[in-house]
Amino acid sequence: LESVGVTEEDRETVADVLLAADLGGIDSHGCARLRRYVDGIDSGAINRRAEPTVVRELAATALLDADNGLGQPSAVAATRLAIEKARSCGAGVVSVRRSNHFGIAGYYASLAAREGLIGVVMTNASPQVAPTFGAEPMFGTNPLAIAMPSGAPADFLLDIATSTVGRGKLEVRHRQGEAIPEGWVIDTTGATRTDVAELIEGLKARSGYSLLPLGGQGEEHGGHKGYGLGLAVDLLCGPLAGAAWGRHVYGDSGAELGHLVIAMQVEAMRDLSAFREDCRTMFEELRRARRTEGAARIFIPGEKEIEESALRTANGIPLTDAVCDDLVRLAAEREVRLPKGIR
Amino acid sequence: LESVGVTEEDRETVADVLLAADLGGIDSHGCARLRRYVDGIDSGAINRRAEPTVVRELAATALLDADNGLGQPSAVAATRLAIEKARSCGAGVVSVRRSNHFGIAGYYASLAAREGLIGVVMTNASPQVAPTFGAEPMFGTNPLAIAMPSGAPADFLLDIATSTVGRGKLEVRHRQGEAIPEGWVIDTTGATRTDVAELIEGLKARSGYSLLPLGGQGEEHGGHKGYGLGLAVDLLCGPLAGAAWGRHVYGDSGAELGHLVIAMQVEAMRDLSAFREDCRTMFEELRRARRTEGAARIFIPGEKEIEESALRTANGIPLTDAVCDDLVRLAAEREVRLPKGIR
Repeated sequence: LESVGVTEEDRETVADVLLAADLGGIDSHGCARLRRYVDGIDSGAINRRAEPTVVRELAATALLDADNGLGQPSAVAATRLAIEKARSCGAGVVSVRRSNHFGIAGYYASLAAREGLIGVVMTNASPQVAPTFGAEPMFGTNPLAIAMPSGAPADFLLDIATSTVGRGKLEVRHRQGEAIPEGWVIDTTGATRTDVAELIEGLKARSGYSLLPLGGQGEEHGGHKGYGLGLAVDLLCGPLAGAAWGRHVYGDSGAELGHLVIAMQVEAMRDLSAFREDCRTMFEELRRARRTEGAARIFIPGEKEIEESALRTANGIPLTDAVCDDLVRLAAEREVRLPKGIR
Repeated sequence: LESVGVTEEDRETVADVLLAADLGGIDSHGCARLRRYVDGIDSGAINRRAEPTVVRELAATALLDADNGLGQPSAVAATRLAIEKARSCGAGVVSVRRSNHFGIAGYYASLAAREGLIGVVMTNASPQVAPTFGAEPMFGTNPLAIAMPSGAPADFLLDIATSTVGRGKLEVRHRQGEAIPEGWVIDTTGATRTDVAELIEGLKARSGYSLLPLGGQGEEHGGHKGYGLGLAVDLLCGPLAGAAWGRHVYGDSGAELGHLVIAMQVEAMRDLSAFREDCRTMFEELRRARRTEGAARIFIPGEKEIEESALRTANGIPLTDAVCDDLVRLAAEREVRLPKGIR
């Protein structure tokens, strides 16, 4: 990032977000994405010296123009502003327009939770998902993250694509030589498809295939709910912020992504210690609930990532050969020294 | 409601919420629920002369104690307060504790949308849903409603249970003599069950059966996402508000339900006309998207309810015999005249 002129502060922010993903086991959003950012800046698609500015502001809200810079610094700035507003007003809502890919939404929601606030963060994304009864990609996997300062052993963190799966999940299955189930991807007739290699290429090229919304195809298992959630995220990130929306994200005029960040003071409603006590008791009850036959454990959202993060902090992050090769090539192209441990 | 001593203002509020559900085709939440409220008040479980009070307040937030009254008046008061705060600060968040069943969440979200604001409303509910890998009900269907002032032909309105289906859907299928699919309900071993009559009784008695979260069983189709959403709604309505949560809702000390209402000014971020223009264009593109084979139409969330409401406003609301019989009995028990048209 330094080699393409990104400031030290922004480089550190991007590195921290990528590292959080790699540590948490969200390999699709870790350093595997570095090339995309470096190439984006190098080609001019992303502004290397962006200066985000507040365009509109009220006591509890702000609209931030990201100046087409990297998504991570803008999303951190938006989160800090939302937290500041929540500290003074009880709640803060910040929209971001003219932004780029910001990595994992959960990173920003967790920033709020670490400071004792509730954080809700969402973004729109490149079009890959079909609406219910539709058979072409009309909006993105539009993730939604909700973090709460529930405290020990770990804050509650839900960080989900509003589609059944993201493309990253297909890629992981494909790398591991595993099949994918019906109900993840459809073709242009609406038929469910499982030929994973072809699907990945088709989704990348945005031709011929669509991911299904959470709840799957049709309405029988609630696919219209996932569709509605994905669409709501798009409306709150695109039309509300003045960013691109639906199938126009990553269009001719660039990514033009929009984000929405909400921070809420727990203490606006309840003492933090009482909130934490209830959360802790609820999580304990969930863990002890009767399990389906053969199930070893009931998880609290965020727990898997926390445990994986502890493991990887101790033992290192297992990068695939493909990611290592790409980092080696990227370092050579940019004439920078490869950090120790990659090879 | 008058016969059990509810004030005129509160009666009108409850009637309006029930009517909105019946008109929109959400029959499970219309006047079929009237008995529940009347009996609840009569038995003292619901406070007929509740005086909701603001317990905590900041510029953009408030905590409302519903004084164990009917959920509808408190939820309307909370929504009005959130709108007022959003008008002055850009955003308003109001929590409600010590409340009761409030009907359809979408009613309150739509109040905000009709006034040009974005509304987000959620509530916890009686425990019927199992967590992912769990096999007993640990929290409610915890609905989430999001409304946006997208304007003509209709505001965007998503109003969904965070489970695959609510119990109401089972009851409708059962009345129509239709089977239910696998993946809606599990028993205490985690096996999916389809013997609908038994399931309805078991769910009512809170014994032996659980609804599955949106995304279904396990993690393969994103069941952990629906579980996480349902749990997030519970934490935001229960522990945050100081209401009951999870399997303690409708416990020994009463319903003790909690709600959360968020209102956001569109104009805090963007001119309402520009927002509406983008929404309209996005909806048009969705409607024209390629469809799955055999599908007649792609819907925008809220459209079905708007169309059904127009039909039923013109032609009347088709009540089932069971609902009519119950209303007739209720009128006789309370010695009130039955409104015209029921029989």
